[in-house]
Amino acid sequence: MRLDDTLAQIEPVAAALAAQAQQHLDRLTKPRGSLGRLEELAKRYVAITGQLPPRLGAKAVVVFAADHGVAAEGVSAYPQEVTAQMVQNFLRGGAAINVLARQVGATVRVVDIGVATALPPLPGLLVRKVRPGTANIAQGPAMSRQEAQQCLEIGIALAEQCHREGVTLAAAGDMGIGNTTPSSALVALFTGAAVAEVTGYGTGIDAATWQRKVAVITRALAVNAPRPDDPLGALAAVGGLEIGGIAGFFLGCARYRLPVLVDGLIATAAALVAVALQPRVKAYLIAAHTSVEVGQQVAWRFLGQQPLLDLGLRLGEGTGAVLAMPLVEAAVRLYNEMATFAEAGVSERQPPQ
Amino acid sequence: MRLDDTLAQIEPVAAALAAQAQQHLDRLTKPRGSLGRLEELAKRYVAITGQLPPRLGAKAVVVFAADHGVAAEGVSAYPQEVTAQMVQNFLRGGAAINVLARQVGATVRVVDIGVATALPPLPGLLVRKVRPGTANIAQGPAMSRQEAQQCLEIGIALAEQCHREGVTLAAAGDMGIGNTTPSSALVALFTGAAVAEVTGYGTGIDAATWQRKVAVITRALAVNAPRPDDPLGALAAVGGLEIGGIAGFFLGCARYRLPVLVDGLIATAAALVAVALQPRVKAYLIAAHTSVEVGQQVAWRFLGQQPLLDLGLRLGEGTGAVLAMPLVEAAVRLYNEMATFAEAGVSERQPPQ
Repeated sequence: MRLDDTLAQIEPVAAALAAQAQQHLDRLTKPRGSLGRLEELAKRYVAITGQLPPRLGAKAVVVFAADHGVAAEGVSAYPQEVTAQMVQNFLRGGAAINVLARQVGATVRVVDIGVATALPPLPGLLVRKVRPGTANIAQGPAMSRQEAQQCLEIGIALAEQCHREGVTLAAAGDMGIGNTTPSSALVALFTGAAVAEVTGYGTGIDAATWQRKVAVITRALAVNAPRPDDPLGALAAVGGLEIGGIAGFFLGCARYRLPVLVDGLIATAAALVAVALQPRVKAYLIAAHTSVEVGQQVAWRFLGQQPLLDLGLRLGEGTGAVLAMPLVEAAVRLYNEMATFAEAGVSERQPPQ
Repeated sequence: MRLDDTLAQIEPVAAALAAQAQQHLDRLTKPRGSLGRLEELAKRYVAITGQLPPRLGAKAVVVFAADHGVAAEGVSAYPQEVTAQMVQNFLRGGAAINVLARQVGATVRVVDIGVATALPPLPGLLVRKVRPGTANIAQGPAMSRQEAQQCLEIGIALAEQCHREGVTLAAAGDMGIGNTTPSSALVALFTGAAVAEVTGYGTGIDAATWQRKVAVITRALAVNAPRPDDPLGALAAVGGLEIGGIAGFFLGCARYRLPVLVDGLIATAAALVAVALQPRVKAYLIAAHTSVEVGQQVAWRFLGQQPLLDLGLRLGEGTGAVLAMPLVEAAVRLYNEMATFAEAGVSERQPPQ
């Protein structure tokens, strides 16, 4: 699926259906509005899918893994080989995302979109390597414009595949040592916030490393001079291969009206890229959780959403997104399974005395 | 099970085991602490149950239903018969709590501990009626001291039954038109907050009714003069039958080291009663969600916990508690199922450069 075609095919969500859904919610045996954000979620699900009543099918999380040339600047607490090691951990089912996905009945799909290390043939691994890691953004662009487009189209194709296979609730996750650095760069660029305000401690760096990280991001933005009105160029300049894949996945989800939960800083930076490419995408994204990473919080304020969960997570992999899946499922089930006042023979509210 | 015996048999949670659990969590393939509150939850689960590794068994929510004489003061948006109607809705599986419990695989146990209306024999209903509704607390005590003790002992017995039947994660819910009024009275009493600061809009009253509700609670506290250092007397004076049942349930859960999620305002008021009776109970309670009801938020600040979810709920029934069950389950599964760095062959963090 080509990027241009996808951007053109994304429709606005079905706002009129959401209003119809509210009427049904008001007939269910509960005080009006008493299910709070779950009612909101049910309506958003209806608007996104364009279907009434809403239907639940399969769930999937797609984890995009890639490396970052900027890791050479010493911005992470972990060595670069961890990216490839964690890919193998994902495929063996031992990582946090595997545990959480098993619990909610979601499949985990692991994509090598740019791991630096050569991986042995691994059963289950989706090999879509655009290049073996990005170049160092502190010195020049992460990748070419063409490679950035390739990442987006890989993500779109994976969303299309989810849709084709009956997935009705999706999430995207990331793995890539050093990837909070390009993500914070993208958040600074698209939101206009200061670099220090969107830079966090990643997997656990100390204060001196944080200072270096801020300096590296500042340099990357100066050297590459990305522009927020050229999101493809910005992704190529200061982004990452997995960030591009996730951004494309969000575009594809919007294209196929597939509700998708957005995870932590990396996924949220990808969401900014996707929304910059096509503003209609915003209404298709569901903010799953508030990350400890400050840049993620800045990005959601910019995008105008309050995430569903706030559990102090800073792991990535799609973990926060998958943890929020039961809430979306609850919203849809309440909509479909609760009795109405009439069905249950329950009295409605009395007029004020 | 007698109240006095139960209070005496509640042990402190196993704090030493929680420290041991943290060591295991630090060996799992994730940056230290990156699972945030889920790591906290896993440790609390271990401390509460006193078992390493933690085990997951069955889940249950016990919904206590009762009526309130104070409804005669016009403090609710719904007529009193709704309590009995909703009990029947629970038994037919059409209420929000049924839908959410089905989703997470929890059983729903419905207890008539004091519904005013005579209910027909209903399959599945646990009849433990202490009296057909409380007396009007604006004019005198809700019930006798002996009846309050009976409510607590019913709750204890139901927790004991859950424990015996293999439940390892419990929740308590409420149904009772008018029950935010006694609950706010108890929160004001135990936390020392002003009545207006702990009184909310219940199922959806208007501003004039809210004013009346504040006046009614103020009168109830003046007429009955309950004392926070006499929690049994306070429950009898300005409490409710389902509030007593839930408070007893929490005592029983603590006695049997059964992790229990605390729902909204009514359950949290019951938690205050239970903790006043035996301060060790506090460490056994897991705050599930932040209710729209302001009194609940005041109570959790007093009890020193930040609830897990904040979804704008104001329904009761145990809905918020059951919505948080997957988070507790996730914490335990992550503890048990994630690979360690050594098992997965993943490099640990490098020393700061």
